[in-house]
Amino acid sequence: MAVTGPPSPQTPTPTPTITPQETAPIGNPIFARIRIANSSDVPHLHKLMYQHAASQRLTHIFSATESSLSATLFNSPPFQSFTVLLLEVSPTPFPDGPVGCHPPITRIVNLDLPIVDPESKEFGSGGEAVVVGFVLFFPNYGVFLGKPGFYIESLYTRECYRKKGFGKMLLSAVAAQAVKMGYGKLDWCVLGWNANAFGFYKKMGAQVFEELKMCRLTSDALQAYESFS
Amino acid sequence: MAVTGPPSPQTPTPTPTITPQETAPIGNPIFARIRIANSSDVPHLHKLMYQHAASQRLTHIFSATESSLSATLFNSPPFQSFTVLLLEVSPTPFPDGPVGCHPPITRIVNLDLPIVDPESKEFGSGGEAVVVGFVLFFPNYGVFLGKPGFYIESLYTRECYRKKGFGKMLLSAVAAQAVKMGYGKLDWCVLGWNANAFGFYKKMGAQVFEELKMCRLTSDALQAYESFS
Repeated sequence: MAVTGPPSPQTPTPTPTITPQETAPIGNPIFARIRIANSSDVPHLHKLMYQHAASQRLTHIFSATESSLSATLFNSPPFQSFTVLLLEVSPTPFPDGPVGCHPPITRIVNLDLPIVDPESKEFGSGGEAVVVGFVLFFPNYGVFLGKPGFYIESLYTRECYRKKGFGKMLLSAVAAQAVKMGYGKLDWCVLGWNANAFGFYKKMGAQVFEELKMCRLTSDALQAYESFS
Repeated sequence: MAVTGPPSPQTPTPTPTITPQETAPIGNPIFARIRIANSSDVPHLHKLMYQHAASQRLTHIFSATESSLSATLFNSPPFQSFTVLLLEVSPTPFPDGPVGCHPPITRIVNLDLPIVDPESKEFGSGGEAVVVGFVLFFPNYGVFLGKPGFYIESLYTRECYRKKGFGKMLLSAVAAQAVKMGYGKLDWCVLGWNANAFGFYKKMGAQVFEELKMCRLTSDALQAYESFS
């Protein structure tokens, strides 16, 4: 529903070094890969989305099922409609080459301390790789720009992987794709109480539109328009 | 950029009667038609979008051209991506039958006084018909719902046609299409200073998410991510 904010500033942690995946730096390197998700990722995606709802105390409105995600998310080529990028990490390098039709983005993140992941089994994605997070986005349109952009509906990283630049990697991947396609903007929503998020996003170059309010028709209020024709 | 609000409440006008286009009621009937726009509507659309920007004092960020609209708006079947519905009115009934592949929505609006349209020539669209306004929308996605919805990027009616239910007709047409497609929500943004708009939308059944703030990367701030890969 909204993009999860960055870490709270009251518990500062060392900033990890993130470098492209050519040479492993000294320390505790972890290999990160961003790739386009496909229908076989739905069980992991569904769990991540539920965790995202739980982190916003919104599980009471969570009705996504594996089946509804499978039916609605993968019906168009990537970037043309709803698109999910998945972030995985591994203690060993990912194999070279594309995953599906698109080359993944790879990085080495150099950590001061190794990450202890209590859910590594549940989120295992082959070999030693685990799923860390995702971003779901789709084309939107700017009437005053007269061209498309992307809207990020949801961006989430699992708790033990936060404060390490992974969220920024996911956001940057979408921004880079927007530029590549000649799109004119990248929009997302943040919960207003998350003051730290705004500082972080402003540092990334984002404007915050304080005056815009989101309105929504859903459930019975939407169904009431069924007979309008 | 945002949906234009409904009329200001300090200048109340009689509520016109809106009925389906079978029988003309007594008074000053005007025939209204909502149809899917196509590339031949771009000159009118571009003018309406510029007026919309002017009404929000945002012409300094208006860079849409007829050519950019033509190149980006009509590349997918209606409702699958960016879709524009156009609202026209005429003193005489519109011809029966579909326009393109989709049946239009028609109504008779019974006005207490006829509308004086100073731009009727500029917005003439064949016969006695004139273009009144438009709504531009596209599919979005609800992660917690696990299914798509629609997002209304822009809804605009020309000034002399306001306070007559035309904006509500356009919004209702999009809501009805969402229900028809089994979509789960209809979202749009409103400028926060427009208190009257919120009252109107709440009466239509909408929730307003006070706590959500829109963030945007655009222009140079977006281009800065070009090299991320």
